Amino acid sequence: MVSTGASDLISFMGINVAAHLRLMLVTDDRVARGRDLIALCQAAERGGVTSIQARLKGSDARELLAFTRMLLATVAVPVLVNDRLDVALAAGAAGVHLGPDDLPVALARRLTPPGFLIGASVGSSGEIGLGLEADYWGVGPLHRTVTKSDAGTALGLEGFQRLAGQARVPVLAIGGVRPEDVEGVLRVGGTGVAVISGILAEPDSEGAARRYADQFALARRS
Amino acid sequence: MVSTGASDLISFMGINVAAHLRLMLVTDDRVARGRDLIALCQAAERGGVTSIQARLKGSDARELLAFTRMLLATVAVPVLVNDRLDVALAAGAAGVHLGPDDLPVALARRLTPPGFLIGASVGSSGEIGLGLEADYWGVGPLHRTVTKSDAGTALGLEGFQRLAGQARVPVLAIGGVRPEDVEGVLRVGGTGVAVISGILAEPDSEGAARRYADQFALARRS
Repeated sequence: MVSTGASDLISFMGINVAAHLRLMLVTDDRVARGRDLIALCQAAERGGVTSIQARLKGSDARELLAFTRMLLATVAVPVLVNDRLDVALAAGAAGVHLGPDDLPVALARRLTPPGFLIGASVGSSGEIGLGLEADYWGVGPLHRTVTKSDAGTALGLEGFQRLAGQARVPVLAIGGVRPEDVEGVLRVGGTGVAVISGILAEPDSEGAARRYADQFALARRS
Repeated sequence: MVSTGASDLISFMGINVAAHLRLMLVTDDRVARGRDLIALCQAAERGGVTSIQARLKGSDARELLAFTRMLLATVAVPVLVNDRLDVALAAGAAGVHLGPDDLPVALARRLTPPGFLIGASVGSSGEIGLGLEADYWGVGPLHRTVTKSDAGTALGLEGFQRLAGQARVPVLAIGGVRPEDVEGVLRVGGTGVAVISGILAEPDSEGAARRYADQFALARRS
């Protein structure tokens, strides 16, 4: 199986995949602090989230599978699964997001059907190799973040631009991304942003998601 | 894809699979306490282990993948992977072992090629459903064990026999199994045993494995 590559990605099977890589919600059960994560995802979708990455920390495969299936049953946007390719395939998710500690993208590609999205985290120039066969990159952290304690040093917009410039596929900025960052990310070549706390730690997930979505609408108009 | 079932299992592609389900070593990095786990597995193979289940607690997919590949490169017996089906497939392992918190067997089956072994843990009559489409069952704990703190109440040989009697596939006893248990396990219908501490916590893994292997040889003769 070969990489779909950036050009195919723009439209695969008639679906404009790149459009779904604008505002990705990454879930975190700890940030939700007991609130119903599915309900928060539905609210975020109403607010304009274009894809959701299912990620539960400290959960087992069966819990992640149940959560992913529940998401697939309740939201219309594409759902990807963090780390667990087997769970993504078993649930029938749209893709998987792989970090530096997860399976290498090239190996994952061999196990997945055409059109299955594989995202890779790229946090430094030394990690560009991790993203070589990925369908999109998650580049960050843009800012310092408390959600991902294992994330590297903040890149800032300049560092993000430097890494994004190496990509031949869509690039999402991740890590402490605020609504006011969207304009800059798009200006320096980013495709979109991935958000955890900026949406899930807010009391109103729908409103929080909309503040990001509005920035995309503004950037398109200008 | 359909379950291979017990009869196919006895000989699949000319390989006597059941023979490999006699003495399974289950790895545990904590039990190895800093000693080279690959070297311990090689020693256990010399002692008569017939299969190895790669299991590292608290490790990520990339570490488990590296460990599994290293095992595949250094031992000749079939290697299965605990929990992570994606890692098992990416590494080219012989199979996966799935517990109650892992992917359901039926879903895993759909993602795997013919002949790929899927084992299931069955610890009570309520968990028999977990094993329905599996190629073998791991039934236990036979005795109380400190290695698996999350294991249920000890079954004893009677409890093991009751569960093993429900299986249409080979059954391994697991959980605190000692060499002197082998004879009884085989007598009540078990196929073999799976061992962690009984081999890896011993100063001489080869000798420890041989004490189990010798019991199979004795049982065959009697």
